[in-house]
Amino acid sequence: MNSVNGDKPVKVALLGCGNVGYQVARLLLETPEDLAARTGAPVELMGIGVRHPDAERPGIDPALFTGDSEALARSGADVVIEVIGGIEPARSLLLAAFESGASVVTANKALLAAHGQELYAAAEKAGVDLYFEAAVAGAIPIIRPLRESLVGDEITTVMGIVNGTTNFILDKMTTDHVSFSQALSEAQELGYAESDPTADVEAYDAAAKASILASLAFHTEVSGSDVHREGITTLTTEDIEAARAHGYVIKLLAVATVAGEQEELVSVRVHPAMVPASHPLASVRGAFNAVFVESRNAGRLMFLGPGAGGSPTASAVMGDLVTVARNRVKGTHGPAMSTYRRRGIAPIEEAMTSYYVSMQVRDEPGVLAKVASVFAKHAVSILEVRQTTDNDGHARLGIMTHIARDAEFTDTVSELRTMPSIVSGRIRLIRVEGR
Amino acid sequence: MNSVNGDKPVKVALLGCGNVGYQVARLLLETPEDLAARTGAPVELMGIGVRHPDAERPGIDPALFTGDSEALARSGADVVIEVIGGIEPARSLLLAAFESGASVVTANKALLAAHGQELYAAAEKAGVDLYFEAAVAGAIPIIRPLRESLVGDEITTVMGIVNGTTNFILDKMTTDHVSFSQALSEAQELGYAESDPTADVEAYDAAAKASILASLAFHTEVSGSDVHREGITTLTTEDIEAARAHGYVIKLLAVATVAGEQEELVSVRVHPAMVPASHPLASVRGAFNAVFVESRNAGRLMFLGPGAGGSPTASAVMGDLVTVARNRVKGTHGPAMSTYRRRGIAPIEEAMTSYYVSMQVRDEPGVLAKVASVFAKHAVSILEVRQTTDNDGHARLGIMTHIARDAEFTDTVSELRTMPSIVSGRIRLIRVEGR
Repeated sequence: MNSVNGDKPVKVALLGCGNVGYQVARLLLETPEDLAARTGAPVELMGIGVRHPDAERPGIDPALFTGDSEALARSGADVVIEVIGGIEPARSLLLAAFESGASVVTANKALLAAHGQELYAAAEKAGVDLYFEAAVAGAIPIIRPLRESLVGDEITTVMGIVNGTTNFILDKMTTDHVSFSQALSEAQELGYAESDPTADVEAYDAAAKASILASLAFHTEVSGSDVHREGITTLTTEDIEAARAHGYVIKLLAVATVAGEQEELVSVRVHPAMVPASHPLASVRGAFNAVFVESRNAGRLMFLGPGAGGSPTASAVMGDLVTVARNRVKGTHGPAMSTYRRRGIAPIEEAMTSYYVSMQVRDEPGVLAKVASVFAKHAVSILEVRQTTDNDGHARLGIMTHIARDAEFTDTVSELRTMPSIVSGRIRLIRVEGR
Repeated sequence: MNSVNGDKPVKVALLGCGNVGYQVARLLLETPEDLAARTGAPVELMGIGVRHPDAERPGIDPALFTGDSEALARSGADVVIEVIGGIEPARSLLLAAFESGASVVTANKALLAAHGQELYAAAEKAGVDLYFEAAVAGAIPIIRPLRESLVGDEITTVMGIVNGTTNFILDKMTTDHVSFSQALSEAQELGYAESDPTADVEAYDAAAKASILASLAFHTEVSGSDVHREGITTLTTEDIEAARAHGYVIKLLAVATVAGEQEELVSVRVHPAMVPASHPLASVRGAFNAVFVESRNAGRLMFLGPGAGGSPTASAVMGDLVTVARNRVKGTHGPAMSTYRRRGIAPIEEAMTSYYVSMQVRDEPGVLAKVASVFAKHAVSILEVRQTTDNDGHARLGIMTHIARDAEFTDTVSELRTMPSIVSGRIRLIRVEGR
């Protein structure tokens, strides 16, 4: 591991200069005295690796840009900051940085979710730091509390809203009574959603973040593909209204819990869920993020803040940079990723959840009794039933259940679908959390 | 500085075995494998310094207790945990620990607020750690985010509810419509308040915490005595009701901001304040704590959780212990207290605040005009006026102001007190925040 002393500058290489990278470069160049005072040595930006080094980027010396990111990553930097995003070339560049003895600060959740173990191992082997506060929930300090503040406690649940784009869309659908596609268009116009919104609306982004949170909280390896994932594209305004009628709002939640009789498993899932309107997560508006952490001793903690955006993400990157640079000045490094618990992944069928099941039924005597008996047969206990009449004159049953195994719901609904009293294709299922 | 390697145990001395100390001892003794895995070396509890070593403490080996805390602090421990509280003997014991090369974890806000600079300097001189997550807001990880996560950002405001006892009392007064003294009695019966409640209800405890938060947020020295302090003992049910009528609740707030034209000052104050019912701080119930942090790049962050209690505080102590112990294993230490900004303290007269002023007036023509002209004369702009009739037939004016210098309010109210139209002694003043 390279180290620097208090007089020698800490050399920083920046990979990527999009929205976040530009803000990071600006912060690095604007307040060198503050940065030096906080780090214990001057911080020097060596170069910025980009695809188009000749593009105009006001306020940044053009001589800093290079098209050869690989050479920059290997050029003897103390710290490499990666804000390119995506898997390649980011992965190869970070492995090159570790090989050259650099510590790394990254905001790349997709990369960590897919190749985290490879990167953590490479960092540990090189005896350097890999910090990634900006990868989850933007500027909200959630990684450090999980990795350090709560490291003497036992975390049992992490639950939160970790994708600002989908929260913006669901909030729009709830507040302005518009459809999913209208809300998505508006999010795209405002720059909250990409032109290809798949990563957000199909919950790949949230699943990546959930896997990182679960790894940290439960001291085990969880990758993005271990996460049970359901997106928000099939949600309708009727679902939103049904939730409202019961006093709930619909949020895309990431939920990670310990599971199994000896807590030898973890259950990690991302899906839309009805949350009681009085729950703190229900009032998280727009593109904000919020994360709940429940632990044996500390009890329930909540962290709330802007979930994305150039400046908040840059703030998180800069906080990591100061910590990592300070470690270099001292010739040390922070805690490595801890996976000593080696817990397995619980299948979604074993998850303990509750559901809201809404179905259109023929208006004939005894339907409720028949439906209720199907729930009872599969050991799913009913909490609340509401019967209303649809615009087309059909009766509609809304059933809120108690907590049961997820597999029992699947069986219940499979059987309901075969019942002649129920209008086929008109069964809607939404999970319920935070009750 | 002593250091240990991965095979040698990290030796821990515990000073104090009250509510928090007992929980810490239990956690240290109960899960040694987890602690070792997270620390990188076994953690060994050498001894527990207490006033009465022979008292019964179930589940802890009596041989661990000693009445000679001074000898224990000097006995070559790697980490000394102090949960005695108060100034002495805690201060001398920590100085002794630093002299012997031990790192320190403490939950003692009063000591840090009064002698923080002496202790930070002693830790830095010895090249060891002084960690104190448990000193502010119980288990809520707020110290580490301020000290590390946001260290690359510029914090402009820290505002929060940092005393659980007074929040419990104010919540009781608001919810159950009881007087301050009734609510206090109940808090005492439930163990939320001490038999001598002065430190809580006169806001000394909150002021100590505010000084620690301000020091960290603004990179400067702030002691408890620098904090402008107003307690909650003179609040009446009428104040609570008046706040409610305007859509506000009353909370004891700690507010720390940068001040002065070049941001060369900090303003730190603790006082009751009316907060809009829709503000996230308004819904912080019972003995919970919550802290808002506003910064240039990260925007607005909120941290919420249990503010006190043995288990949450012990969780925070254990998190610090693992970090500090890990530093010992690596032969390093964490960031020292950063005070490089050396900002001055802004006098309360210069604080920019707004007020709710309520006064009983004689029911005669032109009173409102006269009162309004006094506000105008002192350059205090009025936002909202409500006129109501008291039970005794007097008219009552409730005036909500815009933001102005605190000194202008003092002058305004001094002049109001001399007006014959206003019933002397019936002017009530409450600050307004978070609007």
